[in-house]
Amino acid sequence: MTLTKQLIEWRRDFHRHPEQGFLEMRTASIVANTLEQLGFSLELGKSVMKEDECMGKPSTETTANHVKWAQEHGAIEKYLPYFQDGYTGIVATLDTNRPGPTIAFRFDMDALPILESNEPDHIPTKLAFRSIAEGSMHACGHDAHTTIGLGLATLLAKKQDQLNGVIKLIFQPAEEGTRGAKAMARAGVVDDVDYFIASHIGTGVPQHHFVAANNGFLATSKLNIGFSGKSSHAGSEPEKGKNALLAAASAALNMHAICRHSGGDSRINVGELHAGSGRNIIANSATIVAETRGETSEVNDYMKEQVENIIAGAARMYDTAYSIELAGEAISCKCSEDLAKKLAETAEQHPFIEQVTLVSEDNAGSEDATYFLEAVQKRGGQATYCIFGTDLAAGHHHEQFDINEDTLLPAVEILFTIACDLD
Amino acid sequence: MTLTKQLIEWRRDFHRHPEQGFLEMRTASIVANTLEQLGFSLELGKSVMKEDECMGKPSTETTANHVKWAQEHGAIEKYLPYFQDGYTGIVATLDTNRPGPTIAFRFDMDALPILESNEPDHIPTKLAFRSIAEGSMHACGHDAHTTIGLGLATLLAKKQDQLNGVIKLIFQPAEEGTRGAKAMARAGVVDDVDYFIASHIGTGVPQHHFVAANNGFLATSKLNIGFSGKSSHAGSEPEKGKNALLAAASAALNMHAICRHSGGDSRINVGELHAGSGRNIIANSATIVAETRGETSEVNDYMKEQVENIIAGAARMYDTAYSIELAGEAISCKCSEDLAKKLAETAEQHPFIEQVTLVSEDNAGSEDATYFLEAVQKRGGQATYCIFGTDLAAGHHHEQFDINEDTLLPAVEILFTIACDLD
Amino acid sequence: MTLTKQLIEWRRDFHRHPEQGFLEMRTASIVANTLEQLGFSLELGKSVMKEDECMGKPSTETTANHVKWAQEHGAIEKYLPYFQDGYTGIVATLDTNRPGPTIAFRFDMDALPILESNEPDHIPTKLAFRSIAEGSMHACGHDAHTTIGLGLATLLAKKQDQLNGVIKLIFQPAEEGTRGAKAMARAGVVDDVDYFIASHIGTGVPQHHFVAANNGFLATSKLNIGFSGKSSHAGSEPEKGKNALLAAASAALNMHAICRHSGGDSRINVGELHAGSGRNIIANSATIVAETRGETSEVNDYMKEQVENIIAGAARMYDTAYSIELAGEAISCKCSEDLAKKLAETAEQHPFIEQVTLVSEDNAGSEDATYFLEAVQKRGGQATYCIFGTDLAAGHHHEQFDINEDTLLPAVEILFTIACDLD
Amino acid sequence: MTLTKQLIEWRRDFHRHPEQGFLEMRTASIVANTLEQLGFSLELGKSVMKEDECMGKPSTETTANHVKWAQEHGAIEKYLPYFQDGYTGIVATLDTNRPGPTIAFRFDMDALPILESNEPDHIPTKLAFRSIAEGSMHACGHDAHTTIGLGLATLLAKKQDQLNGVIKLIFQPAEEGTRGAKAMARAGVVDDVDYFIASHIGTGVPQHHFVAANNGFLATSKLNIGFSGKSSHAGSEPEKGKNALLAAASAALNMHAICRHSGGDSRINVGELHAGSGRNIIANSATIVAETRGETSEVNDYMKEQVENIIAGAARMYDTAYSIELAGEAISCKCSEDLAKKLAETAEQHPFIEQVTLVSEDNAGSEDATYFLEAVQKRGGQATYCIFGTDLAAGHHHEQFDINEDTLLPAVEILFTIACDLD
Repeated sequence: MTLTKQLIEWRRDFHRHPEQGFLEMRTASIVANTLEQLGFSLELGKSVMKEDECMGKPSTETTANHVKWAQEHGAIEKYLPYFQDGYTGIVATLDTNRPGPTIAFRFDMDALPILESNEPDHIPTKLAFRSIAEGSMHACGHDAHTTIGLGLATLLAKKQDQLNGVIKLIFQPAEEGTRGAKAMARAGVVDDVDYFIASHIGTGVPQHHFVAANNGFLATSKLNIGFSGKSSHAGSEPEKGKNALLAAASAALNMHAICRHSGGDSRINVGELHAGSGRNIIANSATIVAETRGETSEVNDYMKEQVENIIAGAARMYDTAYSIELAGEAISCKCSEDLAKKLAETAEQHPFIEQVTLVSEDNAGSEDATYFLEAVQKRGGQATYCIFGTDLAAGHHHEQFDINEDTLLPAVEILFTIACDLD
Repeated sequence: MTLTKQLIEWRRDFHRHPEQGFLEMRTASIVANTLEQLGFSLELGKSVMKEDECMGKPSTETTANHVKWAQEHGAIEKYLPYFQDGYTGIVATLDTNRPGPTIAFRFDMDALPILESNEPDHIPTKLAFRSIAEGSMHACGHDAHTTIGLGLATLLAKKQDQLNGVIKLIFQPAEEGTRGAKAMARAGVVDDVDYFIASHIGTGVPQHHFVAANNGFLATSKLNIGFSGKSSHAGSEPEKGKNALLAAASAALNMHAICRHSGGDSRINVGELHAGSGRNIIANSATIVAETRGETSEVNDYMKEQVENIIAGAARMYDTAYSIELAGEAISCKCSEDLAKKLAETAEQHPFIEQVTLVSEDNAGSEDATYFLEAVQKRGGQATYCIFGTDLAAGHHHEQFDINEDTLLPAVEILFTIACDLD
Repeated sequence: MTLTKQLIEWRRDFHRHPEQGFLEMRTASIVANTLEQLGFSLELGKSVMKEDECMGKPSTETTANHVKWAQEHGAIEKYLPYFQDGYTGIVATLDTNRPGPTIAFRFDMDALPILESNEPDHIPTKLAFRSIAEGSMHACGHDAHTTIGLGLATLLAKKQDQLNGVIKLIFQPAEEGTRGAKAMARAGVVDDVDYFIASHIGTGVPQHHFVAANNGFLATSKLNIGFSGKSSHAGSEPEKGKNALLAAASAALNMHAICRHSGGDSRINVGELHAGSGRNIIANSATIVAETRGETSEVNDYMKEQVENIIAGAARMYDTAYSIELAGEAISCKCSEDLAKKLAETAEQHPFIEQVTLVSEDNAGSEDATYFLEAVQKRGGQATYCIFGTDLAAGHHHEQFDINEDTLLPAVEILFTIACDLD
Repeated sequence: MTLTKQLIEWRRDFHRHPEQGFLEMRTASIVANTLEQLGFSLELGKSVMKEDECMGKPSTETTANHVKWAQEHGAIEKYLPYFQDGYTGIVATLDTNRPGPTIAFRFDMDALPILESNEPDHIPTKLAFRSIAEGSMHACGHDAHTTIGLGLATLLAKKQDQLNGVIKLIFQPAEEGTRGAKAMARAGVVDDVDYFIASHIGTGVPQHHFVAANNGFLATSKLNIGFSGKSSHAGSEPEKGKNALLAAASAALNMHAICRHSGGDSRINVGELHAGSGRNIIANSATIVAETRGETSEVNDYMKEQVENIIAGAARMYDTAYSIELAGEAISCKCSEDLAKKLAETAEQHPFIEQVTLVSEDNAGSEDATYFLEAVQKRGGQATYCIFGTDLAAGHHHEQFDINEDTLLPAVEILFTIACDLD
């Protein structure tokens, strides 16, 4: 089978079997199996993920249920013991045993909680690779990312003699909600890395275009907040209650009133508020689902600190208990310009690429690969986050999202060339 | 079968088949059938309920589904056409054709959305008449009320020669949430009534005690409030959103801040608030489930008016649409003391009764029989709300609520004697 | 001079020279001088007031300035050393040296911060005893109370042989704002008292009527609240600020949202809020002037506790410091019915009195004499708060308030008779 | 007298006699007199200011009082009739009668409500030109701007033969609070202008540096907001009140909660909130002093629109009336780059200037000269806002603010050279 054909096969298989964050058991088992067969050394699961740095992990029950689903849908049993508790990260290493730099590439594997369109014109529907896991969908292109990672592995293995040093391929769970990267970075998986490259497909960059360095990621914190009060009959003894609903309402309002920061853009959103269990009962519990963002990590840290003050204060007001769970987090980044230049030069040589942007500062949401960039840069390495433009059928996170598969092979080839060229 | 036995049989059958407000199809069909067999003239369904005055009616779908349940659980088919749209009220008339007053008795039939206890010590569990409709329960004694009504009908029919004038028995749906009485009162069912008597079992009054007039009902309004804004991505273009969550949070806070009223006790509760659909999305919808209460109707009207101002203001703040649905309402009442005295005298004569209170002002929640009292008193008639004390296994609306069935027969006999004595 | 003439002379002199709470230096010096001349033993100033229980005392500067005013307006120098620091309480004792009960009467002396009307029809204007201290006014009748106290002292001294036991006359400062009584009660001035009687003129009770026991006082707390944050330029570095204005706004809103209490009426009012110093500066300070009330002390304590939670919470939200100063406080009371009966009987005998009410539960604002009642009742004594009805030209605290001076002598005589009759 | 000496004399005289916005009567009379003597044609007062576009004008009383002050401190009587109502703008024209462009320069004249430092080290104190108008101070350099304007006029008049076309000098009142420029721009004073140049001294730019175009001004709206409710006794009939304090508190909180805008930086500040008149009175009035800002006029318009929604909503909540007064406003700007380039070239030639920045995007607060820029650019002209760096003793708006007077002459010379060079 040609690599082109293989890439499309992989991509459609992953697209058809989307798995959400920390549940990428089938995906990871196939990735592990492929890499092992290609001759990579593998580190799997908890050995590459710091358990207590995983954020927003699904419940034990959800995780256990998903094991069954994975088993029933083609997961490779041999690897499940590593992944079955939801630690689905993989680090695959190819050591050329020749002197040279250590180069790492990061690929993310998770899907989104979106019900995929079944419009007949939607290509995955038409060509019969629409998601079979109702309510889960690869609507951000991570199926393509995983595919590119396997494609790159294939070339690396095959053309190993063109390489020097050590190559590490990092397959990360739970990028959505910025939940998984920190646990891998903190486990030290890039602590020996000289060059680090993360990549994304799409994000508004047109087909045939390439961005060598994207700095526009907002730092972000995802917060699940709970207030726990005391219920009471609202007619007969309201004063006995401790009103968690009012604590949450007051918190929501004051969170949005957090002061702007002169150091850069900030964001705050209380996306969900749910409180109370009946009309005539003082609400004894309330939950808030919120996020902060900042143009820099400093700005986001400021926002998060204010949220903590406000939650503690709202709880104090109504004499309730409270909890704040960090369900995801990412920092901002500043790509290494020297590395970006090398990528730009490489990309310019590829016949598929018509336009190259060296550095983009466009706001592109949040991304937790930034933890890897930070770790590598801290120890003196270089790191960048590049974007392969592609035609999109609809925007990221849309139920009709789809990429142009023509982008897959050029992406693989460009990354492979970089791996060869860096020294 | 003795009346005592019959009463217990009825009560346990109703207890076993609880039906929530506007869904009392099985119950009403059995009531109608029994009354018709006893010789009462019947008016059923929409002819005794003003459709647009029904508040908080279940959806068409829920109503249609319940028809099936009723059919499967012993509803008498013949009467279902009258009740199948959820208008489950009954007025049964016995005309003695002798001159005399028109006397009306009100009984309510609906159950609560409570999962009945299955503790082995809970009598209904032990004696196998626990609710078979999971999630519905007669936890307020309306099963007993319906039973007393049928018992009273039995005596009235049997001892018709002791009576004068006209007797009307009103079986009302949806007293819980104070949703059903207004529709019957506005349909004019008590517009010819000289004496009106509603009664309740329990409410904290001990076994063997009788309260002839209870004035302690709080006027109340049950409000379902909705805010409808516009969603938007909280990171990339937050300014495009119209934040329904913040409108609701602001409304909740300001509703609780409504000023106290010097004219009497008031209450306000936002019992539930649900808003938003995702962490990173400006919430485009929010719902509030609330209630106001007042020691007098004037105080409750004041509270409700303030709520309306606040909701309109909160919507204006965030440029959202809003809706306020009246999901239930009751007024306060002042029982007719002359009628209460007659009840007190009658009750004192009954061997079961050890203590009689003429007038109680104790706060006893809210009750929509007050609409009947108001209508009767307005046209010059007399009306009261009396209470038959009983032992309670647990408080009203508790999952282990249970009455002492010994109270049933004396209640029937006292009401019958009153019917005989009034002139 | 007849007592009638003397009473009017005293009353008009006090009316003309109103002194606000803790500043009654001229008044107290005249009271002290009169009582000493009548043969009473005096305890003055700090010896009858617990310093740290004085609430809402004016500043040292205001107090010092008022000393001069008092000196220039007829204060008797000899007594000023006792009063010049603002501790203006007096306890005057007459010991008959005959066995008998200890009976105490309380009179309050302070005026209000109201600019008296200069309408020509306003009697004090017409008869030239309008306040000469612009902005201060006896608009609640305490000028009459002080006068009645001196009149009573006159009769007691003159007709000492009709008495037994010990008589104590308590002249209290700062009843307005409920600030002065607690300090005297806590200093133990009624700890030896068997019968305690406080009285008020007017309060809506008509001329010739007498109320022997008034229970309708609301417990209350007067709170001065401050938030202290950090200012910052709102345009260039808003994030450096700690916004005291928003802390106060949030506090105000949530204070009004304190839940109703089933134990009785409650009140909350944020009467004033002042914050900030410029349009483009994050406000670094805010003050709130507030009060809570409760039908019972328990209800008021509940309200106050919630306020404390809310203030602490609002400060936590915005990371500001805060302070809560108790600027006044009163408890509720329940008069001793036996004592009230004796008063009622005595009053009924007086030719001026046409109607006597034994116990009134009418809401009559707040009053700190309740601290004396509590102290006396706690040790087994009896205590009551009675009202002498009078014609009012306008309501209490109105700029045209005025009493009917015909009430003065009967009030003196009734209190004297009681002093004689109690045993 | 040399021009250098004259500049210093003017500047110190203006510094000693600071006049706040719309009160620059003395200043304007001296400016007018000087320009007239130099041969300029004058338009004064209302003829160059659209009355109803003046924002935040002092009261009639304040204005009338200031006329006296101006007369007593050296105002030139002849011009006062034009300025005495507070319309203190001047447009002075020099027509060379040679073909050529119309070039306008804008200078602002007003001082700030700041008490100037009297530290002995503060140069104005040391050299005896500290403000003699206590509470007013030239703490932003407008004394220097007016001086530079007069210096430029002097050179223009003297070296008229080097010029072509028409030169307009605009002396603007009330730049502080961004209140005066709009009224002049709307009066059409730049409607015939081809080149427009505004300038500022300082603003953080170092001595010997020059910025040819400053784009970093935030659009802004200054808002005075009032709520008018109804007072009521908080204890006896709280429900009768309409609580303006709570309306304002709720407004303040929700104003700060206005959503961030993806189109650029925004700001909101409720700088002052004052409400209520007594502890036990429901507050019947409240005032808010606020401002919004936006990186672009679009962002600021968004902020202002949200404020209007919130104020209307808060008033609706509490059934109060409300008012919103626009007390100042400015738009953002984008300088004309061609004109900026010419300024940059000219400045580079001047021996005093060591460094030139073509365009700065640094946030530099708000400035209403932007209305002039907009008007000129709209009709196809070019406009820029340049900055002459200077040593500052302390930051703008600081009580020890002071400039380096060495900057005055170079500024005059550079502006003169530009006037000569533009064609």
